This record gives sequence, structure tokens and C-alpha cells, in this order.
Amino acid sequence: MVEQMPEYMGYDRTIAVFSPDGRLFQVEYAKEAVKRGSTTVGIVFKDGVLLVSTKLASGMMVSSSSEKIFEIDNHIAASASGLLADARVLINQARVKSQIHKITYEEPIDTWNVAHIIGDKMQISTLYAGLRPYGVSFLVAGVDSTGSHLIESDPSGMLYEWKCYSIGRGAQIANKILKQKWKNNMDKKTAISLGIEVMKKCEKDRKQIDIVLVTSKNKFKRISEEELRKVK
Amino acid sequence: MVEQMPEYMGYDRTIAVFSPDGRLFQVEYAKEAVKRGSTTVGIVFKDGVLLVSTKLASGMMVSSSSEKIFEIDNHIAASASGLLADARVLINQARVKSQIHKITYEEPIDTWNVAHIIGDKMQISTLYAGLRPYGVSFLVAGVDSTGSHLIESDPSGMLYEWKCYSIGRGAQIANKILKQKWKNNMDKKTAISLGIEVMKKCEKDRKQIDIVLVTSKNKFKRISEEELRKVK
Amino acid sequence: MVEQMPEYMGYDRTIAVFSPDGRLFQVEYAKEAVKRGSTTVGIVFKDGVLLVSTKLASGMMVSSSSEKIFEIDNHIAASASGLLADARVLINQARVKSQIHKITYEEPIDTWNVAHIIGDKMQISTLYAGLRPYGVSFLVAGVDSTGSHLIESDPSGMLYEWKCYSIGRGAQIANKILKQKWKNNMDKKTAISLGIEVMKKCEKDRKQIDIVLVTSKNKFKRISEEELRKVK
Amino acid sequence: MVEQMPEYMGYDRTIAVFSPDGRLFQVEYAKEAVKRGSTTVGIVFKDGVLLVSTKLASGMMVSSSSEKIFEIDNHIAASASGLLADARVLINQARVKSQIHKITYEEPIDTWNVAHIIGDKMQISTLYAGLRPYGVSFLVAGVDSTGSHLIESDPSGMLYEWKCYSIGRGAQIANKILKQKWKNNMDKKTAISLGIEVMKKCEKDRKQIDIVLVTSKNKFKRISEEELRKVK
Amino acid sequence: MVEQMPEYMGYDRTIAVFSPDGRLFQVEYAKEAVKRGSTTVGIVFKDGVLLVSTKLASGMMVSSSSEKIFEIDNHIAASASGLLADARVLINQARVKSQIHKITYEEPIDTWNVAHIIGDKMQISTLYAGLRPYGVSFLVAGVDSTGSHLIESDPSGMLYEWKCYSIGRGAQIANKILKQKWKNNMDKKTAISLGIEVMKKCEKDRKQIDIVLVTSKNKFKRISEEELRKVK
Amino acid sequence: MVEQMPEYMGYDRTIAVFSPDGRLFQVEYAKEAVKRGSTTVGIVFKDGVLLVSTKLASGMMVSSSSEKIFEIDNHIAASASGLLADARVLINQARVKSQIHKITYEEPIDTWNVAHIIGDKMQISTLYAGLRPYGVSFLVAGVDSTGSHLIESDPSGMLYEWKCYSIGRGAQIANKILKQKWKNNMDKKTAISLGIEVMKKCEKDRKQIDIVLVTSKNKFKRISEEELRKVK
Amino acid sequence: MVEQMPEYMGYDRTIAVFSPDGRLFQVEYAKEAVKRGSTTVGIVFKDGVLLVSTKLASGMMVSSSSEKIFEIDNHIAASASGLLADARVLINQARVKSQIHKITYEEPIDTWNVAHIIGDKMQISTLYAGLRPYGVSFLVAGVDSTGSHLIESDPSGMLYEWKCYSIGRGAQIANKILKQKWKNNMDKKTAISLGIEVMKKCEKDRKQIDIVLVTSKNKFKRISEEELRKVK
Repeated sequence: MVEQMPEYMGYDRTIAVFSPDGRLFQVEYAKEAVKRGSTTVGIVFKDGVLLVSTKLASGMMVSSSSEKIFEIDNHIAASASGLLADARVLINQARVKSQIHKITYEEPIDTWNVAHIIGDKMQISTLYAGLRPYGVSFLVAGVDSTGSHLIESDPSGMLYEWKCYSIGRGAQIANKILKQKWKNNMDKKTAISLGIEVMKKCEKDRKQIDIVLVTSKNKFKRISEEELRKVK
Repeated sequence: MVEQMPEYMGYDRTIAVFSPDGRLFQVEYAKEAVKRGSTTVGIVFKDGVLLVSTKLASGMMVSSSSEKIFEIDNHIAASASGLLADARVLINQARVKSQIHKITYEEPIDTWNVAHIIGDKMQISTLYAGLRPYGVSFLVAGVDSTGSHLIESDPSGMLYEWKCYSIGRGAQIANKILKQKWKNNMDKKTAISLGIEVMKKCEKDRKQIDIVLVTSKNKFKRISEEELRKVK
Repeated sequence: MVEQMPEYMGYDRTIAVFSPDGRLFQVEYAKEAVKRGSTTVGIVFKDGVLLVSTKLASGMMVSSSSEKIFEIDNHIAASASGLLADARVLINQARVKSQIHKITYEEPIDTWNVAHIIGDKMQISTLYAGLRPYGVSFLVAGVDSTGSHLIESDPSGMLYEWKCYSIGRGAQIANKILKQKWKNNMDKKTAISLGIEVMKKCEKDRKQIDIVLVTSKNKFKRISEEELRKVK
Repeated sequence: MVEQMPEYMGYDRTIAVFSPDGRLFQVEYAKEAVKRGSTTVGIVFKDGVLLVSTKLASGMMVSSSSEKIFEIDNHIAASASGLLADARVLINQARVKSQIHKITYEEPIDTWNVAHIIGDKMQISTLYAGLRPYGVSFLVAGVDSTGSHLIESDPSGMLYEWKCYSIGRGAQIANKILKQKWKNNMDKKTAISLGIEVMKKCEKDRKQIDIVLVTSKNKFKRISEEELRKVK
Repeated sequence: MVEQMPEYMGYDRTIAVFSPDGRLFQVEYAKEAVKRGSTTVGIVFKDGVLLVSTKLASGMMVSSSSEKIFEIDNHIAASASGLLADARVLINQARVKSQIHKITYEEPIDTWNVAHIIGDKMQISTLYAGLRPYGVSFLVAGVDSTGSHLIESDPSGMLYEWKCYSIGRGAQIANKILKQKWKNNMDKKTAISLGIEVMKKCEKDRKQIDIVLVTSKNKFKRISEEELRKVK
Repeated sequence: MVEQMPEYMGYDRTIAVFSPDGRLFQVEYAKEAVKRGSTTVGIVFKDGVLLVSTKLASGMMVSSSSEKIFEIDNHIAASASGLLADARVLINQARVKSQIHKITYEEPIDTWNVAHIIGDKMQISTLYAGLRPYGVSFLVAGVDSTGSHLIESDPSGMLYEWKCYSIGRGAQIANKILKQKWKNNMDKKTAISLGIEVMKKCEKDRKQIDIVLVTSKNKFKRISEEELRKVK
Repeated sequence: MVEQMPEYMGYDRTIAVFSPDGRLFQVEYAKEAVKRGSTTVGIVFKDGVLLVSTKLASGMMVSSSSEKIFEIDNHIAASASGLLADARVLINQARVKSQIHKITYEEPIDTWNVAHIIGDKMQISTLYAGLRPYGVSFLVAGVDSTGSHLIESDPSGMLYEWKCYSIGRGAQIANKILKQKWKNNMDKKTAISLGIEVMKKCEKDRKQIDIVLVTSKNKFKRISEEELRKVK
């Protein structure tokens, strides 16, 4: 939880106000919502980008409806940690803008373009007194004419590009493992194995692992459970 | 009731503000309104989806006006727990959009489409300082070209698809029973019996049971009291 | 008066905010305004619906101006308990929309349609921070192609259909009597007698009784004092 | 002054919020502004309606500018008690709408129509958080095709029709006298005498009495001081 | 200073809220700004209206820029006490509307018309929560087809017509003298002398007296210092 | 610093609210920002108007970017004390409006016109609850067909014309000297010497003196450092 | 951290309100966000302007995505310290306006023009109650027809032009060194060496140095790591 000293009381209860030391508490609290969200991992490998997340394995829930990896366009995916209702609405807006881009310019939108669309929406929500920040972070994964990209977007609207990265409640553990084990130009199989290994260390309860590959060849591809079992 | 620690006082009285640990109290309180609402149950079976709810059996009230299962289109129904005035307004908006969809695309709207319409309205209401969240959850049940669907929409705007699920004040008991007894590909009669059994365990006072079936064959069908008596 | 525990202080002073247990205090307080209003009774009988209310019998006031039963269209009436200025404004809006309906569709509006118009206005006023809820409840009485209807609309925007019902300060007493004495298919005379009996038990001070009948034959008909004396 | 119990503190300082017992304090306080205003009296008599008010008799003030009886159309007048700046603005709006009515429908506006215009403006101002209620009450007096009317409009937007009535600081005394002495079908001279008698009991300091007659014959007619002296 | 009892604390810090006894504190405080403003005097005499005010006599300030008597049209002037920046903005708006009137109707605007333009702007500012009242009062002086007029407009938007009147910090003293010495049909010279006498009793520090005459003959005329010396 | 008595606490923390004695604290606090700003001096002399201010003499800063004297049109300049970002934005708006005036009327804008543009913007910002006052004062200097003008505009929107005047932190000292030494019809050289003398008494740290002359002959002219050295 | 005396409590928690001594605390707190940001340095040299900043050297992050020097047009760059999400959004707006300028006037935009675009956006955000200030400062570097420019824009919207300057957490140390070592007309190599030296003293942890040159010859040019190694 964000450290909260008594002398700051009050600065953190109003939207869009700085504290005396230049912090935006509401944005920091929104980041806490991300830290409470389920872990998601992104890995850039030789042929593209890999996103790993979980879905609930309850017999009663249709597990696809708890997937946290979304298709934005057929060459761009995004996984979310935090408030998933916020995620869904932002993803939908990115989808619409991607389609408009395709129709207007007759070429697919860039991954960085999509990241900007999401990041700008999130930054704006931290600026106006009448809105709360979005309580979600994304890993946007895409393969376009500029190559493979894995871009993080957080509640402040910041955008960072990573070679591998994890967000959500298991991020600290996940990123430590990724730092040790990630290598440039990994092949697909190794990348998937690494993704599964990391996720299993972070999310120990009964959940299915959900993997999406974005490659220049297959575009957006959700790996079926059989394929997944073969990898393992 | 939502657990409320004294050190959080204040974070929960303003709309659309995060608490230091990343929670939106107003959304959690709106979920309390759902937990105080009457129980409703949804069950996917072989031929479609079943919604079970209650209506008041007072001699003075016209019982149909206390029905909590609404027809959205002739292949999609929704049952609500929580503030029913909120429910009515959201249902009406979904109805209008479904009709517009039918006219625009010359084909019926998908169940997930309807769920998105409702969920997006609910998410938006958690984002702006000038609105309160909607104090209602829905089970949206539909049969369309993609099959049978039972989708939950809650005050945060989250959408989950279930094979069987219950919301409202009896949800805890109901979901325990459903978990034990629900089976894939149940026939209609067994599904109705299960729905009635669950509802009787949750809502013990003098109320009539209200059942709606959505099947590819009969579309939206409210079971009459005679039919219901036969099943029992 | 709404029970108000000290630990809830603050939740009830802002418009459109949930309390920790999921209640909207401002809506509950608006309902108190209804409970302070004068009693009104509605009774469905064989040929239509009956509304009973009071008007002031002061020699100085023109008693018709204190009537609380309004004509919305010539087949639909509504009686109000609570803030009558709020009532007047909502009734006027319903009147205008009924006329528009008639002109647009070349047939009279349904009773439920009118109830939705009023109920939706009232629900919306509970959702936005810049508005207070309406402090009034209605009994909407109408006879249309779907039969006779008596529909209650309360400050939350809820709509319930009744066979007989009472709102306002005498509602508790009135509904107890109605429950005992109301019978299906009552004739007009019995219904009027029951209405007068109930009203006399609830409103004991010097007031005139005001009765409106809505029947398929006579449409909206306010019973004159002579006719009333004959009934008694 | 409105009775104010300590446990209600806070409910009365925000616009458009209900107290736990269903009262709108800001509207009640606006009514206090009316009770502090100068007395005005209205009397329906055989040929029309009479409004009595006062104007300042200071040698320095042009007494007509302190008149509180306004002409809305040549067959409708209104007298005001309370904040006269609020009164002036509402009267002007009623004047404009009356002229528009005349031009649109080619017939003079009804007295009740004018009362609705004023009352609706006042009700709306009690509903929105960004406005204060109007601090004024009116007696609207008119003679139209439906006869003579004397209608009160108060800060809540309520409208009541009276045969005789008084508002403002002397209202309690005035209405007691009116109740004893008013008779149906009074002639003009008796009505004027009654109006003057009442006003003299209520407003004892050095002020001139201002009288306006609205009759079907003479329409709006302010009685000159000579005429007034003859009556006395 | 406005008397402020401790039990009223809070009612006076929010814009557009009534106190329990029906007062608008913000308007009363705005009137205090008027009482702190420099004295201005208006006198109706045989041929027109006279406004007297002061201007600073500092060697460094261009004294015309501290004049508080403004020309609105060539037959209408206005002097201000209180916040002069507020005055300037309102005067400009009145000027523009006067010009529009002249062009639209091909005749000069009436004095009362101008007073209404100013008064309505001031009343509106007391009604909305997002505005403060204007902290200024005016004496509007004009000669038109209806004769000579001297009209006061205060922060509440009230309009009173006077034969002679004073506003600002010296108003109490000034009005006492005016009451004793003002006579109907005074000639110009006597009126000017009275105006100067009053002003000298009220504003004792080193200031120049500024006089404007509005007559049917000379229209708006600022008396030069030589002329003034001749009068004295 | 503005004197702040404890009993006024609260009146000064909300925008656009009067205190009980009729003061607008937020405007007074904005004036404090002016008093903390660097000194600027204006002097009317025989051929035009002179503005004197300072610019930083740090080796690292490009000194022109710390100039506080701005060209509005080629015959009008303005110097600012207080929040210079506020100044820049207001100056830009005045520039645009001056250009529009020139194009529309085919003649240069008057100095007083420019002062009104700035003053009106500043007054408006004191009226609305959603804005803060501008924290800057200006000396507007211009030579037009009506002669030479030096006009002060302060945070309340007040406009005063001066023959010589100083604003900012050194204003008290500066105005004392100006009062003693300023003479009508000074020649350019004497005026510049006076300006430099005053500025040197007020701003003692290492800063360059910045002088702008506005004359009918040379229009806007910033004196170069060489010229300045010659004068000294 | 901004010095915060207890008697000022409250003035700093609302947006756009002055404190009694004329300060805008929210703007000062936004400047704290800048002081917490990473150091960036700008140096004007013989052929153009140099910006030095850092980028993260983590193996996992794509270092280009942590670059804090942005290309606005091909002859103008800007580096940012503070909230980088705010920076990105402002930079994008400047880019769009620069392109519009180029298309409209058929010539590249001036560096000062770009600085005004950014500075005005930032000033506006300090004026309205519904916005927070931007928590970022920029060094805008450009070479245009008026020469080489290095302009600072801070959260208040102030713009200053420098010959060399540093902002961010190392600014105090950096500016001390720059003051000692910067010389007019430095050649490129010396300027780069100075930039690197300064940055190494300020940002000691493992980060890569990021350098952008804007010259009339090469326009915007980011120095590759090899080139950088040669310089060192």
C-alpha cells in the first residue's frame, strides 16, 4: 500500500491535486489497484511477442470470459492488470480507433500508435477534477512494419517499451525471474516455457494459464489448451 | 456490509475517488445494494438458458409488475438484483439499442453485444464525479448464432460469462448448490427443477417463483404457473 | 423518520452517494416527504380504476386548486402524495408526452407508458450529483386496450402495479383495510364506498373527499359533490 | 423563523438536499424571506379581483417605484412579497411569455397559464444544486374567459387558488380578518374597504396603500389616490 | 458591518444559499462593499437630473480616470459606489445594449430600460452558485420622453426611483441633508449648490468634486472646473 | 501581507465570495502577487510615455527573455509586475484584439481600448467561482490620436490613468520619488534619468535596466544598452 | 519540499486559489514534481543547441522508450523533467500545431512559437478550478531563421530563454557547473563534453546518457552510442 504519512492527510482525497512534495496521490492509489490485479507477463522473442495471463478455472465460469488478454487488431494484443471493467472500455476505444486508422490510411495501425491512444486517455483522466484515473495497466504487444513491440501503459498515462515485463500482483517476483532468464532472440518454445514458469511462480491458486502469441506470420493467436499441454 | 476501517474514513464519501489501497468504495457500496436485492439464478442447459427469480405474491400487487426478469429482445432476457429502478432504465436502453441493431444490420443482436451495452453504461458511471454507480447487477441470458450465453454484469461494469450463476442476497447459498449439482447438457426439466430447488433454499418467504426460458426454439418464454406446477 | 445511525453521518448529506450498506439516503429521505404527504388511495374495480384523495375545505381556498388527482389524458389519471410542486411539473411533462404519443401514433398512450415516463424522470434525478430526487409518489390509474391499471411510482423511480393501494401519511392504515376488504370485480358503488371508508379513517380533519373514476365508458370523471352525497 | 433542531445541522446549508424527515430546508428558508416581505392582500369580488399592497411614502422616493403590484398583461396582475428583485425578474419573464402567447394563439393568456409559468420557474430552482430557490411569493390576479382567479405561487413552486388571501409579514393577521369578513359576490366598494382595513391592521408605519383592480370591464386599473380617498 | 450572529456561521460562506431567517448573506456582504465605496449623490431638479461624485486630486493620477460618473447614452448617466471594476463592466454592457436599442427601434432607450438591464444582470448573479453578486450600486440618471428619472440599482438587483438620493460611505449623512433641503422644481444653480454642500460634508479629504448634469437641453454634460468655481 | 483577522477565516479560501465587510479576499491576495513582483515604472513626458523595468543580468539567461515590457501594437506597450505567465497570456490576447481592431476599422486601436480589453478579462476572472483572479498588474503606455496615456490595470480589473506611476515590490519607494520629482512636459532625457534613478533605488541587486519609449515619432522603441549608457 | 507554514493550511489543497501572501501553492507543488524528475541539460553552442538527458539502461527496457528528449519538428527538440505522461501529451500537441503551422504558412514554425504553445497550455491549467497544473518543465531547443534558442517552460507557464540551463533533480549542481564552464561560441565537441560531464555529476546511477543536437546543418540529430563513445 502507498505509504501515507499523517501530514499529507487531505491531499489524497481530492482528484487532480498535487501534494506538497509534487505527488498525485489519486494516481498512486490507482496504481495500487493495478498491484492488486492478477499478474500478466509479456515476452519479446525471435518471431514476435508473447503475452501470458490467467483465466479462472472454475467449473461454473466460462473461462474465456475471464481472459485478460484482448485482441485490438489482428496484429496487436493487450493484456491488463487491475480494474478489468476499465480495461474493457479502453480496449474497445483502441479497437475502434484501430479500425478507423485502417480505413483512413489503408494500412494497419502501429503498436506505438495504439499505446498512445490508450496512454493519452489515461493521462487526461488524471488532469481533470471531474474524473478519476483509470485503475488499470496494460501490456500492449504488437508486430508491425517497425518490428515487435511490448509497451506498458500505466494509470498516469506513462508508456515504456520492454523486451520482457510483468505487471500486477506478481510483478516483483516475475520481473526478477525475467531479468535472470530472458535472452535476446529466444525461440517461441523457450519463450512460452519461460512465460509459463514465471506465471506459475506468481499465481499459485487454481487458474488456467492463458497465452497469446503475436507474430508476423500468425498475427494474433491464442494458444489452445492442447497446444499448451504439448509445450509443457 | 463492506468492511470499513476507521483509517479509510472520507475515501468512501466522494464519488469516483480511489482509497490508498486502490479500491473504489462507492462501487463496493453499490455492490452492497446488489447483495441486499432478491436472489436470481441463471442456468445454461441443453437447449438454452434458464433464469429464475421471484415475484411478490401479495394479493394486492399485480405480481407481473414485481417480475425481475425482463425481455430485451425475443432471444435475450435479463434478470436483475439490486435497485430495480436502475435496472429498468438500463434494460430500456438495451432494448432500444437492440432494436436499432436489428434495423441497422438486419440481424438480431448478440448476447455479448447486449452485455457490453449494459456493462459500458455501468463502467462510465463509476468514472465521473457527477454520477453515482448503478446499484444493480444483471444476469443476461441469450441464445444466438454463437450459442447459449449467461453473462453477469456488476456495478463496476465487469462482465463474466457463466454456465450457471446466482446474484443477490441468496447468492452464496445458491452458488454452493449450483456448483454441486449443475451438469453439462442438462435437459430442460432437470434445469427447471434445479432452479426451483435453489430458489426455495434462498428465498423462504411467501413469494412466487418466476421462470424465463430462452431457447433457440421458443425464444423468450415465461413459464406459466400451471406449467410450473406440472414441473414441480 | 428514516432510522439514522450515528456511524452513517455524512453519507446522507450529499446527493447520489451510496452508504456502506448500499443505501441511497437522499432517496430514502425523499420517500419521507411522501410519507408526510396527504393520503391517496387507488382501487381497481369491475369497470375501471378509482382514485380517492382529499381537497382542502377552507372557505377561502378554491378547493379545486388543492386537488391532488390530475388528468393526464382522458383515459389516464394520477394522484400524488408528497411535494405537490414536484408532482405538478412531472404531471405536465407526462401530459405533453401523452399528447405527442397520440399525434405520432394516432392512438392513445398506454397507462404503463405514462408510468415509465414519470418513473424514468424520477430515476434519473437519483443518479446525478447536480439534482435532488423528486419528493413525490404517484398512483397512475388508466384504462387502455390492455385493461385497467393502477401503477405506483416512487422517488427511486420504481414502478409497481397494484389492484388496490394507498400512499401518503395514512398508507399503513389504509393498506391494512384495503387488504381485508378489497375483492376482485367489485362494482363501482362498492369500490367508491370502500375508498371513502378508507380515506375517512386516514384523514380525520376537515377536508373534502375528492374522487376520480377512470372507466372505459366515461374515461376520466371527477365525481361531483352531489353524486358523492348520493353514494354515501 | 423555521424551527431548527441541532441534529439537523448541515442539511440546511446545501442547495437541493432533503433532510432525514423529508424537508427541503433551503425552500423553507426562502419562505422566510417571503414572511419578512411586506404584506399583500388579494380579494375576489363580484366583478373581478382586487390586489392591495403598500408603497413607500418617503418624500424622496418616487412612490411608484416601490409598488409591489405589477401588470403582467392588461387582464392579469400580480403582487409580490419577499425579495423584490427576484419578483421583478420572474414578472418580466411572465410578461414576455404572455405576449408570445397572444401573438401565437391570437387570444389572451389564461390566469392559470401565467401562474404555471411562474410556478414552474420556481419549482425548477429548487431541484438543481447550482441554483437557489426564489425568495418571493406572488398573488396572481386575473379575469379571463374562465372567470376571476386569485392564485398564490410560493418558493416551492406550489400554486393554490384563493377567494381571498394574504401573503407577507402580516399574512397571519390579514387572513384571520379575511376569513371573518369575506363574503361571496362582494361589490367593488366593499371589497376595497375590506382590503384597506386589512392592510391598515398589518402595516402600521407610514406607507401609502396601493390598490389594483382587475375586472372584465376595466382590465388592469391602478386606483388613483383621489379615488382611494373617496372610497375611504 | 453586517451583524453576524455565531449561530449563522456557515450560511454566509457559500454563494446563493438562504440563512434560516431567509437572508442572502452574500448579497448583504456585497452591499457592504457599496457602503465602503465613495459617496455619490443624485438630485432631480427642474430641468433634469444632477449626479455628484468625487475624483482623486492626486497630482500623479489623471483625475478623469477616477471619475465615478459614466455616460451610458447622451441622455443617460450613471454614478457608482463600490467595486468600480464591476461598475465599469456593467456600464459597458448597458452602453452596448443602449446602442442596439437605438439602432433597432430608431429612438433612444428609456432610463428605466437601462436600469432594468443593469438590475437584471445583478439579480442573476445572486441566483447561481457559480457567480458572486456584483459589489456595486448605481444611481442611473436620465431624461427621456417620460421625464427625468433617478434610479438606484443595488447588488440584489433591486431598482428604486428617487427624487434625490445618495449611496456609498457618506449615504447616511447625505440622505439626512437631502431630506431636509431638497425641494421640488429646484433650479439648476440651487441643485448644484446642494449637491456640492452634501458632498463636502461626506467626503472631507482632498478630492475634486465631479458633477454631471443630464438635461433635455444639454443632454449629458460634465461641468468643467471653471463652471464649478463660478457656482461656488 | 494582507491583514487577516482570525474571525474572517474561511472567507478567503473560496474563489469569488465576499467577506462580511464586503471584501474579496482572493482579489486582495492576487494583489499580493503583484507586490512580490519586480518593480516597473511609467512616466509621461513631453513627447510620449516611458516604461522602465528590469531584466536579469545572469550570464546564462538571454536577458531579453526576462524583459517585462511588451509591445502590444507599434504605438502601445505594457509592463507587468506579478505572475509573468499570466501577463504573457493577457498581453497576447490584447495583441490579437489590437490587430483585429486595425483590420476591422482601418485605424490603430486606442490605448484606453487596450486597457479595457485587459481590465475586462481581469474583472471577469474575479466573478466566476471556477476561475482564480489574474495575479498581475500592468502599466499600459500608448500614444494615439487622443494623446499620451499611462494606464494601470490591477487584479480586480480596475483601470486608472496616471502621469507617472510605479507598481511591484518597489512601488511605495518609487511613487514617493516620482511625486517629488515628476514635472509636466519633462523632456525625454530628464524622464529617462528619472526613470533610471527611481529603478535603482527600488531594485538594488544585479539586474539590467530595461527601458521602452512610446512616442508619436518613433512609436515603440526599446532603448539599446549603448543608448542607455549615453544617457547615464 | 515547498516550505509550508501551519497558518497556511488549506490554501494549498484547492486548485487555483491564492494564499494570503499571493502564492499559488498548487503551482509550487507541481514544480516539486519537476524537482523530483530526472535531470536534463541544454547548451547553446556555435552551430546550434544541445540537449542532454538520460535513458534507463535496464536490460529489460527498450532504452529508447525512456528517452526524455523529443523531436517536435525536424529543427526543434524538447527535453522534459517531471511527469513524463504530462510531457508526452503536451509534446504531441506542440507537434500537431507545428505541422499545422508548416502547412498554413509554408514555412517552419519558430522555436519561440513552440514555446508559447506549450507555455500557454500550462498557464491555462493554473487558472481553472477544474484542472490541475501540469507537473513538468521543458527545455525547448531549436534553430530557426532567428538563430539558436534554448527556452525553459515551467508549470506556471513561464518562459525563459537561456544560453545553457538545467532542470530536474540535479539542476542546482548542474547550473553551478554550467555557470563556471559555459563559454560563448563553444564548438560542438566541447559542448558535448560539457553536457556529459554535467550529467555524470548529477545522475550517478546506472543510466545511459542521451544526447540530441539541433543544428542548422543536421537539424534534429540523436547521437548514436558509438558517436558518443568517440566523444568520450
